[in-house]
Amino acid sequence: MTNRFLDEAIALARENIRQGGRPFGAVVVKDGEIVARAVNRLLADNDPTAHAELLALRAAGKALGSPRLEGCSVYASGQPCPMCLAAMRMSGIRDITFAYSNAQAEPFGLSTAAIAAELMKPLDQQSGLSIKHSPPEVAEEDHLYRLWQKQSG
Amino acid sequence: MTNRFLDEAIALARENIRQGGRPFGAVVVKDGEIVARAVNRLLADNDPTAHAELLALRAAGKALGSPRLEGCSVYASGQPCPMCLAAMRMSGIRDITFAYSNAQAEPFGLSTAAIAAELMKPLDQQSGLSIKHSPPEVAEEDHLYRLWQKQSG
Repeated sequence: MTNRFLDEAIALARENIRQGGRPFGAVVVKDGEIVARAVNRLLADNDPTAHAELLALRAAGKALGSPRLEGCSVYASGQPCPMCLAAMRMSGIRDITFAYSNAQAEPFGLSTAAIAAELMKPLDQQSGLSIKHSPPEVAEEDHLYRLWQKQSG
Repeated sequence: MTNRFLDEAIALARENIRQGGRPFGAVVVKDGEIVARAVNRLLADNDPTAHAELLALRAAGKALGSPRLEGCSVYASGQPCPMCLAAMRMSGIRDITFAYSNAQAEPFGLSTAAIAAELMKPLDQQSGLSIKHSPPEVAEEDHLYRLWQKQSG
C-alpha cells in the first residue's frame, strides 16, 4: 500500500541524500493537505536538533500561526527519534506514520533505538548522564514561576 | 550554593517573563565559558520546539561550528523536558544542571513529568498516540539507507 504523504517524505529524504545530507524527510499534514516539509539539516546547519521531523514541526507552527498542532499528522521517512517523538506529543500531534524502522536502520548505523531505550529508564539509572537538581534559594515572591503567573495572569 | 551559570539561566528566564514569554532560560558552557544563551520562544515564534534548552543547543552548534557538543554542559532554569533531554543526549552532552524541578513547576501547570512518564512506556502502550510503521516496498538498490551509504561512502 502506498501513501502519497509518506511517498513525499521519502522523496524529500532521497533528494537530501543527493544534496549530501542525511537520509531523512518528513511532512506535516492537516485536513488532507501538506502544510510543512523538511529534511535533515544536521550537517548543513551544524544544528544537533535539525532532524526532519523537528524542522517540519517548526515550519508547521509558522505556517499555521500557532505552536499547537492538534489535528495534524506527521509522515516521516524514518522512525522518529525520542526528541522528535516528544516534540510531536507536546505539540499535540497524535498521528504518526513512518516508513523505515529502527530495525531497518540498524545495519547502517542510523537507528536511535539504543538512545530511546536509555531515555526510557528513570533519570538516576541512565548511563553516562549527570543530571543535577540545584534548587534556587529565593524568597517566595521571587519564585520564577510565581513571577510568571503574576505577569501572565 | 550558587552557580554563576545557573544564575545566568535564571536571569534569562526572568527577563523572558518581562518580555511576555515563558519562564525558561538556558546556557551552554564549554571550558568554563558560556558559548550559547537562549530563552523559551514558543509563543513569540509559534514554534512548538522553541524551548530554551533546544534553542541553546542550536546556538551552541552554530557557535562551535559542529552539531556535536561533547564536553559541553547545560544549565537550565527548569527541569529539561523529554524533547530537550533527548536532544542533549544525542548531541553528546553529558552534564546537565537545572534549578526548578518538575515538582516545583507542577502547581503552575509547567511540569512535563506526565509527558515524560508517558514517553517512558513502550510505544504500543502509550496513550493517545497512533504510531504506524508502513514499510516501503522498494527494490534493494532503492533502499533509502543503502542509497545514503553509497553516496556518503
